[in-house]
Amino acid sequence: MPAQIKNQNLPEIALIMGSKNDLPLLEGAINIFDKFDIKYMVRVMSAHRTPGIAAEFASNAEANGIKVLICAAGMAAHLAGAMAANSTLPVIGIPIPSEPFNALDSLLATVQMPPGIPVATVTAGKAGAINSALFAISILALNNHKLAEKLKQYRAEQTEKAIQADQEVIEKFNK
Amino acid sequence: MPAQIKNQNLPEIALIMGSKNDLPLLEGAINIFDKFDIKYMVRVMSAHRTPGIAAEFASNAEANGIKVLICAAGMAAHLAGAMAANSTLPVIGIPIPSEPFNALDSLLATVQMPPGIPVATVTAGKAGAINSALFAISILALNNHKLAEKLKQYRAEQTEKAIQADQEVIEKFNK
Amino acid sequence: MPAQIKNQNLPEIALIMGSKNDLPLLEGAINIFDKFDIKYMVRVMSAHRTPGIAAEFASNAEANGIKVLICAAGMAAHLAGAMAANSTLPVIGIPIPSEPFNALDSLLATVQMPPGIPVATVTAGKAGAINSALFAISILALNNHKLAEKLKQYRAEQTEKAIQADQEVIEKFNK
Amino acid sequence: MPAQIKNQNLPEIALIMGSKNDLPLLEGAINIFDKFDIKYMVRVMSAHRTPGIAAEFASNAEANGIKVLICAAGMAAHLAGAMAANSTLPVIGIPIPSEPFNALDSLLATVQMPPGIPVATVTAGKAGAINSALFAISILALNNHKLAEKLKQYRAEQTEKAIQADQEVIEKFNK
Amino acid sequence: MPAQIKNQNLPEIALIMGSKNDLPLLEGAINIFDKFDIKYMVRVMSAHRTPGIAAEFASNAEANGIKVLICAAGMAAHLAGAMAANSTLPVIGIPIPSEPFNALDSLLATVQMPPGIPVATVTAGKAGAINSALFAISILALNNHKLAEKLKQYRAEQTEKAIQADQEVIEKFNK
Amino acid sequence: MPAQIKNQNLPEIALIMGSKNDLPLLEGAINIFDKFDIKYMVRVMSAHRTPGIAAEFASNAEANGIKVLICAAGMAAHLAGAMAANSTLPVIGIPIPSEPFNALDSLLATVQMPPGIPVATVTAGKAGAINSALFAISILALNNHKLAEKLKQYRAEQTEKAIQADQEVIEKFNK
Amino acid sequence: MPAQIKNQNLPEIALIMGSKNDLPLLEGAINIFDKFDIKYMVRVMSAHRTPGIAAEFASNAEANGIKVLICAAGMAAHLAGAMAANSTLPVIGIPIPSEPFNALDSLLATVQMPPGIPVATVTAGKAGAINSALFAISILALNNHKLAEKLKQYRAEQTEKAIQADQEVIEKFNK
Amino acid sequence: MPAQIKNQNLPEIALIMGSKNDLPLLEGAINIFDKFDIKYMVRVMSAHRTPGIAAEFASNAEANGIKVLICAAGMAAHLAGAMAANSTLPVIGIPIPSEPFNALDSLLATVQMPPGIPVATVTAGKAGAINSALFAISILALNNHKLAEKLKQYRAEQTEKAIQADQEVIEKFNK
Repeated sequence: MPAQIKNQNLPEIALIMGSKNDLPLLEGAINIFDKFDIKYMVRVMSAHRTPGIAAEFASNAEANGIKVLICAAGMAAHLAGAMAANSTLPVIGIPIPSEPFNALDSLLATVQMPPGIPVATVTAGKAGAINSALFAISILALNNHKLAEKLKQYRAEQTEKAIQADQEVIEKFNK
Repeated sequence: MPAQIKNQNLPEIALIMGSKNDLPLLEGAINIFDKFDIKYMVRVMSAHRTPGIAAEFASNAEANGIKVLICAAGMAAHLAGAMAANSTLPVIGIPIPSEPFNALDSLLATVQMPPGIPVATVTAGKAGAINSALFAISILALNNHKLAEKLKQYRAEQTEKAIQADQEVIEKFNK
Repeated sequence: MPAQIKNQNLPEIALIMGSKNDLPLLEGAINIFDKFDIKYMVRVMSAHRTPGIAAEFASNAEANGIKVLICAAGMAAHLAGAMAANSTLPVIGIPIPSEPFNALDSLLATVQMPPGIPVATVTAGKAGAINSALFAISILALNNHKLAEKLKQYRAEQTEKAIQADQEVIEKFNK
Repeated sequence: MPAQIKNQNLPEIALIMGSKNDLPLLEGAINIFDKFDIKYMVRVMSAHRTPGIAAEFASNAEANGIKVLICAAGMAAHLAGAMAANSTLPVIGIPIPSEPFNALDSLLATVQMPPGIPVATVTAGKAGAINSALFAISILALNNHKLAEKLKQYRAEQTEKAIQADQEVIEKFNK
Repeated sequence: MPAQIKNQNLPEIALIMGSKNDLPLLEGAINIFDKFDIKYMVRVMSAHRTPGIAAEFASNAEANGIKVLICAAGMAAHLAGAMAANSTLPVIGIPIPSEPFNALDSLLATVQMPPGIPVATVTAGKAGAINSALFAISILALNNHKLAEKLKQYRAEQTEKAIQADQEVIEKFNK
Repeated sequence: MPAQIKNQNLPEIALIMGSKNDLPLLEGAINIFDKFDIKYMVRVMSAHRTPGIAAEFASNAEANGIKVLICAAGMAAHLAGAMAANSTLPVIGIPIPSEPFNALDSLLATVQMPPGIPVATVTAGKAGAINSALFAISILALNNHKLAEKLKQYRAEQTEKAIQADQEVIEKFNK
Repeated sequence: MPAQIKNQNLPEIALIMGSKNDLPLLEGAINIFDKFDIKYMVRVMSAHRTPGIAAEFASNAEANGIKVLICAAGMAAHLAGAMAANSTLPVIGIPIPSEPFNALDSLLATVQMPPGIPVATVTAGKAGAINSALFAISILALNNHKLAEKLKQYRAEQTEKAIQADQEVIEKFNK
Repeated sequence: MPAQIKNQNLPEIALIMGSKNDLPLLEGAINIFDKFDIKYMVRVMSAHRTPGIAAEFASNAEANGIKVLICAAGMAAHLAGAMAANSTLPVIGIPIPSEPFNALDSLLATVQMPPGIPVATVTAGKAGAINSALFAISILALNNHKLAEKLKQYRAEQTEKAIQADQEVIEKFNK
C-alpha cells in the first residue's frame, strides 16, 4: 500500500515535484511555508512514473483537506495538468528548467492548458518556487486575516530591502 | 474623479483588460461568471495609459471586497504585474496574443515575475480567459461549498461532452 | 458505463485525439489505414477532460489486442504522455498546431518525455497524421510480410509520383 | 570494402550515431539494451560524410534482420531522415544537442519529416537515448511475450523508485 | 530508367526543389536566370522520396557540367545537405516556409550543416529564390566578364528603383 | 545627382524606410508628426540597395539640421545600424514584420547592436511607428517647453480615452 | 521618508536598475558617464517591489531636472515601461539576461510597449549598458556642442581601435 | 591612410571578421586555406565601427583580385550584408554566437537579406568557419581542376575518418 494513503491528516498545501532532483529548486517555497507557519506537505509524484498515485492523490486532495496543489515539473511537464484533470482545487504549476530547452518546454507544457482545466503558472525555476508559495498563501489569506497581515508584512520587508539596496547604491554613486 | 472610486460595492472578482479591444477574447470568462452566478466587475485599466488608476485600484481592491484580480494584457503585458505589485490578493494573468510575436511577448511578460511578487498565468488567449475564470472560482470555492459543487458539476459536464464526442467518433469510424 | 469497455474486439491500432476538433487534421491517417486494410479504432479521449477513461484505456490496451497507440493533441499536449504512462505499448504522438504558439507548445509537450516513458513523435499536423499511420504500419509490418510488401509498394508509388512531378517540371522548363 | 557489409549476422536493433562524439550521450540506450538482453549493433554513419554507406545500410537493413533503426544526430540532423528514406523499417530519431542552438535545430530537422517518410522522434539528448531504446524494445515486445514482461518489470521498477523517492521526501518534510 | 540520366547536355545551374508545390516560390529565381540568359535546369528531387536519384544526380553533376546546385526544401529540409554530401560543387540552400513552424525548421535544417559539408543558405522563401539565383550568377561571373557586367547593371537598376521610390516619397511628403 | 543633396533645408526628424512598401506601417508616425507640428522628412533608403546614399545622408544629417533619425526596416534590418554607424545623432529603429519570421529577424537585427554604436529600438510594426515618433518628440521636447506641454497633453488624451473605454465597459457589465 | 525625495539636485541622467544584482552589468554605462563628465545618478527601483517610489520618481523626474531615464531590468522587465507610463521624458530600456530564458523575456517585455508609451530599447546586457549611456549622451549632445564633439571623438577612438585590430591581424596573417 | 589600400596584391579570398575577438572561432577556416594552399587575407572590419573602410574594401575587392568575401560577425551581424551591398562578388556569412541570444540574432541578421542582395550563410560558429572556407574553395575549384581534386581528396579523407570511427565503434560494441 503506497505511503500517501496512510496519512490521514493532510496539511493545506501540497508541494509536489515530478522528480526528487527538483528539490533544490523548490527550497524557496519550503522556506516561505516555514516562515508563514503554513502546514504543508512535500511529495514526489510523477504524471508519467506514478500516474495512478498522482491521479488518486489529486482526486482525494479536497477530501483530505488540501486547499492548494503546487506542482513542479520539467520537460514535457504534465504533472500540474494531470493534477488539475483530477481535482477542482486550485493548481499552481512551476516550470522546471532543464537542458537543452531550458524552460521553454516546461513552461509551454504547464501553461497552455486547454479551456476547462486551468493551471495557474508561475515563474520558471527558483523564482517560481518562491512565487508559488506566496500565491498559495495569498489564496489561504482570503479567509485568514492574520495570514493576510503576514503577507503584507512580508511584502513590506521586500520593499524595505529594495529601498535599502537603493540607499546603498545612492551612497556609492551619488555622493 | 474616475468612475471606479464611486463604486462602493465591488464584487469578488475583477476582470481587468489592458485595452477594450481585448474584450472579445474575454467573453469566455464573463460567460463562466454568469453561469456560476459569480459577482464580478469588468474594467479597462492600463499599466501604461492609466498607471495611477490601476495602482490605486489594486491598492484598494482588498478593502473593497475584491478577492481575485484577473488581468488580461498583450505585448509587453505589464498589467498583471502592476496589479500584483500593489496588492497581495491573488492575481491571475491572461496573455493576450497580438501580431507579430503572437503571445510569446505577453506570455513571458506576464509569467516571468521576479521572486516575491507572484502572478499566476493561464493559457494565452480565449482558452486562458475561460481558465482564468474557472481558476478564480476554484479559489472562491475553497470557502463556498455550493460553488465547489457547481465546479464539480461543470467539470462533469465537460467530461460528459468529451465522452459524447468520443461516442460520435466511435459511431462514425468503429462500426 | 463508458462505451469503450463494451468493445471486446479492439483493432490493432488506436488513433486517439484529444478533441473532436482535431479530426480533420487526422483524416490522412485514417485514409492510410483504409488503404492498407488495417483494423483501427478512432477515439476521442482527453488527458485532462477524461483522464480516468484515458488511463483505463491505456492500461487495458495491450490486453484488448491493441498494438500501437497513436495520440494527437494540441497545446499542453499531454495525451500521448498520459497513454505512455499507463502502457508499455509503442505510443506515437502527433503535435496538433493551434493559435497562438502554432505547434511549438504541442511539439515540446509531446516529445520532451522524461527518461523511462518514451513517446515517439512525428511531424506536427496533417503530415504527422500520415506519418503516424505509416510508422505504426511499419511496426505491424515487422511480423506481417504482406504488409511489409504493401508498405514498399506505397513507398514506390510515392517515389513514382515524385519522379512524375520531376518529369512535368523537366518538360516545362528544360526543353 | 566497408566494414558493415562483412557482418552477415546483424542484430535486431541498430543504434547509429552521426558522429563518434555523440557516444557518451547514447550510453543510456546501450545500457538498456544490455539490461534487456537485446542483440544490438552500434555504428557511426553520417548522412553527410558517408551518405552512400548510410543509404546502403538502410536499404539492406531489413534483409539483414534489423527490425528497428535508431539514429542520433545533431545540428542539421539528417541521419534519421536519410535512413527512413531508404528503408520502410521503423526509424527512431534522437536529436543531439549542440552549441549554439541547443537542440532546436536537431529536433526540428529530425521530427519535421514530410508526409510519407516517417521518423519517430524521442526526447533530445540523454533522456532520448534511453527512451529510444525503450521504444524500440516496446516494438520488439509486441511479438515477444517475455520481453513484454521484462518491459513491464522495468516500468514497475521505475515506479518503485519514484515511490521510494516520495517516501524519502515524506520522511524529510512531513513528519 | 529515370529521366535525368537521358539528358546529356546539362546546363550550368540546377535549380532543384523538394516538392513541385514549391514551384511558385521559386519563380523569382527562374526569372533571374532568364533575364541573365543563364542556362539552367529545373528539377524535382527529394532527399526522402527519391534519395537515390538525388544522390546520383549530385554525384554526376560536376561531370555533367553543372557548376552550382540550388536546392529548395521545407520542413526537415535535407535536400541541400543531401546534395552537398554527394558533390563538392557549391550548393545553395533555400529554406521553404511551411505551417506550423514557418521557416524555422527549414532554415535550421538547411544552414546548420556539420563541419566539412558546406551548404550556403539564402533568405527563406521568395526572397531567397531571387537571392539564390543572383548568388549563383555571382559565382559564374567570376570567370565571365560579361556576366559580371550584367550583374553590376542589375544592381544599378535596383539602386535606381530604390532612388526612384525615394523620389516618390520625397515628393509626397517633403514638399 | 541624387535628390536628397539638393534639399538644403532639412527638418529636424528624418523618417527613413528601407522599402517604400513599409510606408503603410509608418503612417502612424507621420500622423503624430503632423499632429505635433514637427518638421520632418520621409525618405526611402536602403542599407543594401543604396548604401552609399544612406551613409552619406547619415554623415551629413547633423550638419543638415537633423536631430533624430528614425529608421524602419524588415528582415536583416541593417538600416538603423548603418545610420548609427555614420552618425552620432540619436537613431531610433523600428523593426518591420515580414513573413516568415514575423519580426523576430528585424527585431534582433535592429536591437542587438554592438557596444559603441547604439540604436534605440521601439515596438515592432505599427505600434513602433507611433512610438518612434513620440520618442523622437520626447527628445525634441527637452529643449522645447511648448512641445513638452503638447506631449503631456497627448498623454492626457490617451489616459482620457482609456478612462472612457473603462466607463463604457463599466456601463456594459457592471450595472 | 524615502531617500530619493531628499535629493533636490538631481543630475541629468538617471540610471535605474530593478535589482542591485544588475549592477555589475551596468558598469559600462557608469564608465561612459564618467568619461564624458556627465552628471548622473544611479538608483535601485523596482516596478514590482517599490512601484510607488518608481512611479513618484518618474512623475517628478522632469521637474527635478532629469532629462533621460535609463532603466535596466530582467525577466518580466516592467521597469522601463513603468517609468514611461509616468513620464514623457525619453526612457531607454536595457534588457537584463537571466536564466532560463536568457534575455528573450526581458527584451520582449521591454521593447513591445503599446502605442502611445514609447520605450527605446538597446542591446541586452553589458553591451546595452554601454549603448544606453551613449544614446543618452547623443540626446544631451543635441544641445551641447562640446558633448557632441566628445561623442565624435569617442567614436573616432572606437574606429581607431578597430583599425588597430585590423593592423594586428594583417601583420599576423597577411605577410 | 588605412592599411588595406596599400596592399596592391590582394589574395583571392578575404576572411573578414567584425571583431578581433572572433579570431579563435575562425581558425578552422584559416587552417583549411593553409591546407589547400589558398592565398587569403584576414582582416578586421566592422559594419558599425569602420563602415567606410568596409564599404571601400568591398567596392574595390573585385578590382583588387578578390573572388570571394567571407564575413564573420555576431549580434546584429551586418558585416556580410554591408559587404554584399557594395560588391557583386559572392559573399559568405558566418553567424558568430554570443550571449544571451546565442546565434539566433546573428543567424537571422546574416541570412535574412532582402531580395537582390544575396548573402550565402553557413553554419553558426566554428563549424561555419570551416564550411565557409570549403564553400569558397568549391567556388574557386570551378575553374581550377587541381583544387577540385584536392577538394575531393579532402572529402574522401573525411569519409575515411568517419569510416574509421565506425570501425572503432564496431570493435567496441559489436564483437
